[in-house]
Parts: sequence; structure tokens; C-alpha cells
Amino acid sequence: MPMIIAANANAQGSHVGEWRHPDAWDRPASNIENAVRLARIAEEGKLDLLFLADGNGVRNMDKPDLFAATSPSDRPGVFEPVTLLSALAMVTKHVGLVATTTTTYDEPWHVARRFASLDHISGGRAGWNLVTTSNPGDALNFSHDAHVERGDRYERAFEFAEIVKGLWDSWADDAFPQDKASGRFLDPAKVRALNHAGKNFKVAGPLNAPRPPQGHPVVFSAGQSETGKDLSARHADCVFAIEGTIERARVLYKDLKDRLEKYGRSPDSLKILSGVTIIVGETAAEAQRISDELDDLVPPAVGLDYLSKMTGTKMSGYPLDGPFPDLSGEHVGPTGIGKAIVAKALEQKMTVREAYRSILPQMAGNLFKGSAKEVADQMEQWYRQEACDGFMVAAPVVPVGMERFVRLVVPELRRRGLFRTEYEGRTLRDNLGLARPANRSFSPTAKAAE
Amino acid sequence: MPMIIAANANAQGSHVGEWRHPDAWDRPASNIENAVRLARIAEEGKLDLLFLADGNGVRNMDKPDLFAATSPSDRPGVFEPVTLLSALAMVTKHVGLVATTTTTYDEPWHVARRFASLDHISGGRAGWNLVTTSNPGDALNFSHDAHVERGDRYERAFEFAEIVKGLWDSWADDAFPQDKASGRFLDPAKVRALNHAGKNFKVAGPLNAPRPPQGHPVVFSAGQSETGKDLSARHADCVFAIEGTIERARVLYKDLKDRLEKYGRSPDSLKILSGVTIIVGETAAEAQRISDELDDLVPPAVGLDYLSKMTGTKMSGYPLDGPFPDLSGEHVGPTGIGKAIVAKALEQKMTVREAYRSILPQMAGNLFKGSAKEVADQMEQWYRQEACDGFMVAAPVVPVGMERFVRLVVPELRRRGLFRTEYEGRTLRDNLGLARPANRSFSPTAKAAE
Repeated sequence: MPMIIAANANAQGSHVGEWRHPDAWDRPASNIENAVRLARIAEEGKLDLLFLADGNGVRNMDKPDLFAATSPSDRPGVFEPVTLLSALAMVTKHVGLVATTTTTYDEPWHVARRFASLDHISGGRAGWNLVTTSNPGDALNFSHDAHVERGDRYERAFEFAEIVKGLWDSWADDAFPQDKASGRFLDPAKVRALNHAGKNFKVAGPLNAPRPPQGHPVVFSAGQSETGKDLSARHADCVFAIEGTIERARVLYKDLKDRLEKYGRSPDSLKILSGVTIIVGETAAEAQRISDELDDLVPPAVGLDYLSKMTGTKMSGYPLDGPFPDLSGEHVGPTGIGKAIVAKALEQKMTVREAYRSILPQMAGNLFKGSAKEVADQMEQWYRQEACDGFMVAAPVVPVGMERFVRLVVPELRRRGLFRTEYEGRTLRDNLGLARPANRSFSPTAKAAE
Repeated sequence: MPMIIAANANAQGSHVGEWRHPDAWDRPASNIENAVRLARIAEEGKLDLLFLADGNGVRNMDKPDLFAATSPSDRPGVFEPVTLLSALAMVTKHVGLVATTTTTYDEPWHVARRFASLDHISGGRAGWNLVTTSNPGDALNFSHDAHVERGDRYERAFEFAEIVKGLWDSWADDAFPQDKASGRFLDPAKVRALNHAGKNFKVAGPLNAPRPPQGHPVVFSAGQSETGKDLSARHADCVFAIEGTIERARVLYKDLKDRLEKYGRSPDSLKILSGVTIIVGETAAEAQRISDELDDLVPPAVGLDYLSKMTGTKMSGYPLDGPFPDLSGEHVGPTGIGKAIVAKALEQKMTVREAYRSILPQMAGNLFKGSAKEVADQMEQWYRQEACDGFMVAAPVVPVGMERFVRLVVPELRRRGLFRTEYEGRTLRDNLGLARPANRSFSPTAKAAE
């Protein structure tokens, strides 16, 4: 199985200062031409998939300084991800299309339907990144007075995922004979109402769509809490993980793979993708120059604001060139990002300034920087040492950073036999090496095995 | 202002038997290639827009005979409309893209966001057909035990539309300077939180998307009840109307236009499109032959089932060749379709068999049939006599019926100066002759005028 490489397809680079770089594209807000170009670059590189992170709110309006410093990577002006990926399905042929949708503020019927639609439109390339929404403010856009409590969000997410999969299994794969001669458009014996009635939802079904080409679109998840990891082990095909060091990543990798047995799943039925920002140059010196240019585009006040946001702690009181304070005992956000930042800053004895500069490539956790050989070395090490099955790659400046990655690093990975030269199959599942799920409504043995 | 022509873009012909016709395309269920072809035909004809009806449920599973006779026009195997139109945005340049979405089972934030997205992706060609959902069974897919009561649905719809428009007005048109030199991505003075708190919803806003190119995507509505007509007069830019005779259509047209003054709107700010199935041939005889072929593809039992469904009355007890019973006092469904069928059958003293054959072109209300000249005569008459501002055209067999309409009828309308030879503008609003709405968050006078 070759290394998996996903492209972060949010139409802004991962570095906070990137949009100001001369090479960054102009007018990144809701710009379909940019999105098309990025998709084509990823497909030319034969990358596995485009991944769109998402949220349902504009952040930091209550913090005027931070809001005024908003960059495109805060996503105040973006496309709804499924709508965007459906458009991109028409200008690509092979690359997977993975969109983030929340289970906390949407309906299982709508989510099942939209991703089934995207899977039909794209010929089996759709993926759903299931999130429970960590940003408290999003609740206020959905008739809530406050953020939904974490335990309730996850309880709802488990039930939600179960319903979505049940709806995708509404119809047998051959339920629509569409036979003009007999007049039989559908086969009434090959549909099952779901009749789900649970704590959070009642959903009768069946879905008004044929079963998706992939059976189920590929399900992604990212939570690194205990409940989050259980949700991934139960329902996800791929996990997007962030750990700051290879040692911690190997522990997480083993932890996630070990959880699968409980659900009757094999270790290779869950793929773990490590989030990484890649700054590559023709030489290591060029990569460093690009990195410095980007960091210099961010004023210290903005850098401190971001550091505060990522660690969940107000950092502006600490001297810029003093030592990074020990925050390791504090709660630093629901994903692994905040923890990874703190751990790395302490380990490497960074100053506060060094710490904020180190996270400006915002996907953080990891920054692989250097010549093509150096970057490929790091990717190979993580891959071979079972720290991940592949990577979610963010470019520091789009589109040039992704172009550079495809032009410089991908060929080096191919030379080492680590990455594909052609797409293996027709669907995203094929390319990821994931089996097509049995239809639980029509195969009792598959159901019993769950 | 030329006649408006919209194309029914559901990937099945409007006639119940159409999919069995030799000319109908094979495998209409969720088939993106068919949808693309139909979109291109509409754009080659320079039609105004593609219109997708929709529902959120599979119907008639509790009626085995009717379910077994399901045709594609019952929509058991379809795309989610916004997802489909976003894909079609990439293979067209001018034609408008109008999708149906319910206000009863969705969230204003999601609807505002998806249509803003579609408007950005398509360069200003999006439209939202607001429905409250008339099919009772859809409720069971959204954690309801029964259909939401009509009064509650409409109350929610008024509030929902207000919020969606408010969210579209979150940002001034120039709120995103995206200025690399100054580092100002957005202008904090050019955004307003909505802070809506009403009976059904609380939505803080602002939307996480720049203002749509059209200001507001074009809003469609269809209800013909008093409340439905008020909703259209308050919130719609276009109404999809069905009346069986030109006399009744003229009354409805005047009624709708007269309601606008109350909301400070001019008569030409609301366009009324009449639903019509068009069966055109090179000659009147060919049109009749096509019509008979289609009717013959439908067994009487299926025809009676459809008649029962459309009138809301069980018709199988009445003799096939006996007179159509007087159902005019009964409630025959929430839209104008059922009433129009009953009125027409009584006026024309149809038998039950004649009545079901007359509605097999399911959009019903009107069937314009004949040579190109005869069809154009009828369209011209309705248009000139103020029965409508244009038409929502359904073809009996797709794609050939739409091709034939574009090849035969559209040139005849052009010869008469009734229809465009080139698209007038860049956006759907431009082509429909609708003004771009002022931003109510940033223009107090516009707000005061509402």
C-alpha cells in the first residue's frame, strides 16, 4: 500500500501571513478559479484527495484586534464545502473530494443525501469529514444560546453517523433496474425503510437516492480525545491526526489501530493521515528563505494573538523574547494542536517569539521544511516507522506551495517507491485501499459482524 | 421585457410514462451525464434558467401498487438539488440555476450559506425556490412524528426567509479589500451581525461568505393559498404558478401583482411563470402521435393512481369511461394543481379515463400541444394577455422533448420578438430584469422602504 497524500484544499495557504506573500494569489475570498486551479494541481500530482476543513461562524468579532487582523485562513469568506466540491467534481476525474460537515448543527437525512449526491456526481470520489464543531460561537447561528456540551455533541455524533450509514444502505445496489420493457423503474423488494428511533433522532427513510457508488462515501474524523478516538474506531475510514513529534504520533497510531478490534475491524481498514505543512525549495536555503519571508509578514501582535488562540491562553503578557511558559497542565483546546504546540515549545526551549513564529504555518504540529530530499526523508521516516499511513499536506502559499510540492517532493517519493505513478482505481476507496462496505440492510451476515 | 422561459431540469420528462419511451434516455436515476446534457440544451436555447423541484422523502411505500408503478418523476432516485446545480455551474456559463429547498426541515444559516456559495461559484446565477414541503411523509425523516401543521410551516417560512436575506446582507459589497500591502483582508467596519431572535429561530450571524454577486440569489415561491400568495408578495422575486385556464391565470396574475404595493414593491419586481408541458412536433399530427404514444405507455391502474394522488381522492371506484365526478367542493391538495385538474375535467365534461390521460404530462394545469406555430400562439396569448410573464417549461420526454422545444418553438418566439437572441446580462437577475437588492444592513433608506 503506497503512502496516502491528501491536499488541504482550503483556498488559502496554511501560513497566517501567506496571503500577503507576492506569490500568493490575489482575492482568495470565495474565488472559484483559485479552487479549480488548486484541484488541478493536486490531480496532476495524483494526490489522493482534496480536503476542506470548515466551520459555521465568523470568529473573533468580540476581539477587535484579532478580528482586524483576520486572514483568509480564519475562513470568514469561504464556500460551503459540499457545494464547492461538487463544482470541482466536474473539472477533475480522479482526485477524492472530502468535505467537513458538522453532526451538531445538521440533520442526518441532509448529510446522507448531500454526500450520496456528491458520490454519484463524482463517480465515487466523495468523503465526509465528520466533526462535532469545537468553536463555541457556531451554536449561536443555530438557535442555541450557548455551545452544545461536549458529551452531548459526541453522543449525537455516534447516533448521527449510524443513521447516515443506514440511509446510504436504503437501497440494494441493484434496486433500480430502470427497465423500459417491463415498466419496472425500481424493484420494491430492494429497499428498506430505516425506521431509526433513538435518543436524538427519529428518521424513517429510505433515502431518495440510489446507493452511492462507493457504498458509503469515505468517512473522516479527527478528534483525539478518548471519545473522539472511539468515534473514529467505530465509524471512520480515515483519521486526520496532529501530533508534534514522531514519538507521540507512533503512540497515537498504535492506539487508534488497537481500538479497531473491538468493532471487528482490521488494522488496515482505518487510515491515519498526519497533518503537515510543507515548505520545500530547490535547496534547503531556499526553503528557509521562503519560511523567513512568510514569518516576517506577520506583526508580533498578530503572532501573539494566534499563539493565544491556539493554546487557549492569553500570551500577550509574556515577554516576547523570554522563555515560553509551562502551560502543559492547562486545557489547550479539544484537538491535539494546542497540546502539541505547548509540548514542542517546552521541549525545544523556545522563546515566546520563537513559539509564535513556529506556529504561523497554522496547521502546526509538524512543519517539514527543506530540500525535496530532506522533506521526503521526513515523510519516509514517519511512514515507515508507523507514525502514519500518509499525510494531509498544507502548502504555505497557494497555489505555488502546492505546485512546488508536486513538482519537487512527489517525484522524489516516487523514486523511493513510496507514492503512486497512476491512480490505482476508479473510486476514492479504491485509491485509499479501503473495501467497499457491505449493505447492512441486505446482508444479514455483514450486520451480525458489526 | 422579453418572455421568461425556465426549463424544468429534473432529469425525467414530465409525463408519467415518458421514461419508457424509446427516445427517453436510459438510466435516468442520479445520472450526471443526463443532467449535463439537459443543461446544455437549455443554454443553447438561451433559456433563462434550470429549475429543480425537490422533496425529502420516498413516497407511496405504504401503497404497494402505486409504489411498484413508481416512475422517475416520483423522484425516488435523485440528486440533492444544490449539489447538482453546483456541478452544472461548471459546464454552463449563462443559464440560471434554481434549486428547491424546504424551510420546514432546514436551517436558515445552511440555506443562506449554500445559495451564497452557489451564487459565488456560478458568478451570480443562483436561485432558491422556497417551499414549506407539502408531502406529509417528509416529516418522518426529520425527527417529527407527523406533518408540521400548515400554519406553523408558513409562519416559520416567513421568519426563515427574513433571516436568509439578512445573512446575505451580512457584509457590504466591498467588505473584503484583500489588500496585500496594508495587510487588511477584511474591513471590520463593513460587517454586521444579524442578531435575529424570533419565535422560531435565533441566528447571530454574520454569514461566513462575502455578499453574493446578485446581492440576493433570486427567490422563487409557488404556494397559491392566501398565505402562500402573501409569502410570495413579501419575499419572492418569481412565482411558479399553475392554473388550468387562461382566465384563471389572469386572475391569479393580477391578484399577485396587486399584493406587491403593500410591501412597497413595483409590479415588475415579481415575475410570474406559468407551468406548462409542451409537446411539439414538426406538425400538429406528429405532436398528437407523440402524445398518444406516451399515454399508451401508462396502464389504466397507474393512471388512476396518479389521478387519485393529484386530486387527493380515491378514483379507482369510478367507472373508467363514466363521467368525471364533481369533486369541486373537496380539498384537493395545497397547490393549484389538484384544483385545476378537477375544474378542467368538469368544464370539458371528461370521462375518468380522459381525465387521467390529461394529467399524465404530470406538470398538468396546462398542456400546450401542436406544431411550433400552434404552441407559440398559445404562449404568446398567455403572455400578451397578462396571464404570466413567462413559462416553466417541462418536456414530455427528456432530453428529446427539450431539444425539440428549443429547435422548433424558440425560433418561432424569436421571430415574433418575444424571446431573446442573446443573454442580456451576466447574472440571472440581469436576465430576468430584476434589480439587485440594496444591502439592508448598510443602506438605512433601503431598510426604511421595506
